[in-house]
Amino acid sequence: MIIPEQEIADLMTRAAAFEAVESVFAAMASGDAYNFSVVREAIGHEDALYGFKGGFDKAGLTLGLKAGGYWPNNLEKRGLINHQSTVFLFDPDTGKPSAMVGGNLLTALRTAAASSVSIKHLARENATVIGMIGAGHQATFQLRAALEQRSFEKVIGWNYHPEMLPNIEKVAREAVLPFEAVDLPGMVEADVIISITSAFAPSLMAEHVGPGTHVACMGTDTKGKQEVEAALLARATVFTDEVAQSISIGEAQHAVAEGLIEQSDIHQIGAVINGTNPGRISDDQITLFDGTGVGLQDLAVASAVVDLAVEKGVAIEVDF
Amino acid sequence: MIIPEQEIADLMTRAAAFEAVESVFAAMASGDAYNFSVVREAIGHEDALYGFKGGFDKAGLTLGLKAGGYWPNNLEKRGLINHQSTVFLFDPDTGKPSAMVGGNLLTALRTAAASSVSIKHLARENATVIGMIGAGHQATFQLRAALEQRSFEKVIGWNYHPEMLPNIEKVAREAVLPFEAVDLPGMVEADVIISITSAFAPSLMAEHVGPGTHVACMGTDTKGKQEVEAALLARATVFTDEVAQSISIGEAQHAVAEGLIEQSDIHQIGAVINGTNPGRISDDQITLFDGTGVGLQDLAVASAVVDLAVEKGVAIEVDF
Repeated sequence: MIIPEQEIADLMTRAAAFEAVESVFAAMASGDAYNFSVVREAIGHEDALYGFKGGFDKAGLTLGLKAGGYWPNNLEKRGLINHQSTVFLFDPDTGKPSAMVGGNLLTALRTAAASSVSIKHLARENATVIGMIGAGHQATFQLRAALEQRSFEKVIGWNYHPEMLPNIEKVAREAVLPFEAVDLPGMVEADVIISITSAFAPSLMAEHVGPGTHVACMGTDTKGKQEVEAALLARATVFTDEVAQSISIGEAQHAVAEGLIEQSDIHQIGAVINGTNPGRISDDQITLFDGTGVGLQDLAVASAVVDLAVEKGVAIEVDF
Repeated sequence: MIIPEQEIADLMTRAAAFEAVESVFAAMASGDAYNFSVVREAIGHEDALYGFKGGFDKAGLTLGLKAGGYWPNNLEKRGLINHQSTVFLFDPDTGKPSAMVGGNLLTALRTAAASSVSIKHLARENATVIGMIGAGHQATFQLRAALEQRSFEKVIGWNYHPEMLPNIEKVAREAVLPFEAVDLPGMVEADVIISITSAFAPSLMAEHVGPGTHVACMGTDTKGKQEVEAALLARATVFTDEVAQSISIGEAQHAVAEGLIEQSDIHQIGAVINGTNPGRISDDQITLFDGTGVGLQDLAVASAVVDLAVEKGVAIEVDF
């Protein structure tokens, strides 16, 4: 089954992505699914980063990998997007390849689904104000998915480049919600904050976050990157998709390195979904989700899109 | 471009596989090509081993991976072969996938090409007797490719299961060569020996190998496997596809562990191809090639088969 990139937008829904990511996080926490070690190489050609993120979900019977990476000259030289990825699924009963799926839009959707899953399970039910740190292309995906989880009444936003804020303002207006640009201290008003930047220094400080807030840190996926002050993790109850990644390449790398928290202070979001971790236990508690991004998320959404493509008769079948 | 497994037999030639493998070994030695770290997982389902071998050849502009593994119940349960693999190629200029190629027959051909390349560059020109240790399906590929490299006059063979020797006898007869089953000491007659078994203990001892012989060890690709006595490596000049694999999962793992040779005693076959290593320097010298199998070999033969498929108009093009 081949599902080309251009078909994904018509096939995949935010609801399907949410369900796929929620299920696979649960499977990871129950030990039914695991990610393989990540291969990531600077190949010395076109300044590209290339690699593989694989995994196996025994519960969902999803096996495979996402391959691809970052080609920084694509847009300028060729009018192609810089992030390029493809998901390959295999039949876990036989080892034969079963599907090849365009992974660019899926990556955006699964990343948005992850913060959305964290909001469903960790934000206060009565959350009304959502704050965005970051206003790039991916921020619009995060906000759209987040707005489906609570009856938000207002969107506030901050970005390193304020001229990009109209990107998220547009999403707020589509949802008939007021939007307000704020400075970082103004974030204290938010009940939910999503940070989605590519920064190497914190913007959101502990003092910018009010009691009872849920913070989803979605931008840190590499050693050295950082979006929020490490002290915020010490104040918060910290959840993540995968603990090993959280402490090595995720937002928690800094708080752990500084001795503010330990690995054992970090909980799998899947355990909350499964009910083996209580999640939020008070209205004053700050919860923080460190979304590092795992291969199993990619496999889960790709597998969902294959089902949808087969249903709608748009999958290209090749006798392989 | 999709090249299904069933097309490969009609497309790929031993000559094309030889040329692809020889070129990529040369590129590895000159620093133009390298393999990524290998992912290999026992997934806990169907007793399967699954993983990825990737690499990049800057000279040949070949980027990608072989994915797949070993499903031990395939044959008995489903009538499928147990080794299942698929090669995925990417455009190194953009990161977009360029080809998906059935990898089962290609794996057999590239493994055969590797020992054949070693014979071309390391065996004595006047070699007349070739000895086979192993007589399974893969042994027939190794022998067929080897016979093209020298004017052999006789094939001798030994196998753990002598009832399988007719497999290689048949290949000898097709080449109009006499075949003789021998015991292991009888291997001393051979000018070239290929061992291709899955053994965890040596069969070929140092005393079974005469002066001037070239030995290609093709079966050891895992920690613990062993085909020849470690002392043979101390007597021989040792060459390999990739030194790092040779000392960790290849035949040289044992001689290095026992202190009989050092990493610096092992030479890249590519350096011989490039002319930066003299290779064989006397008619008395024993040369030994430790063929561990690298991802770049798979990418090289897959890339060659894509060119052949396009030429013959049998590649399935999908707008991805």
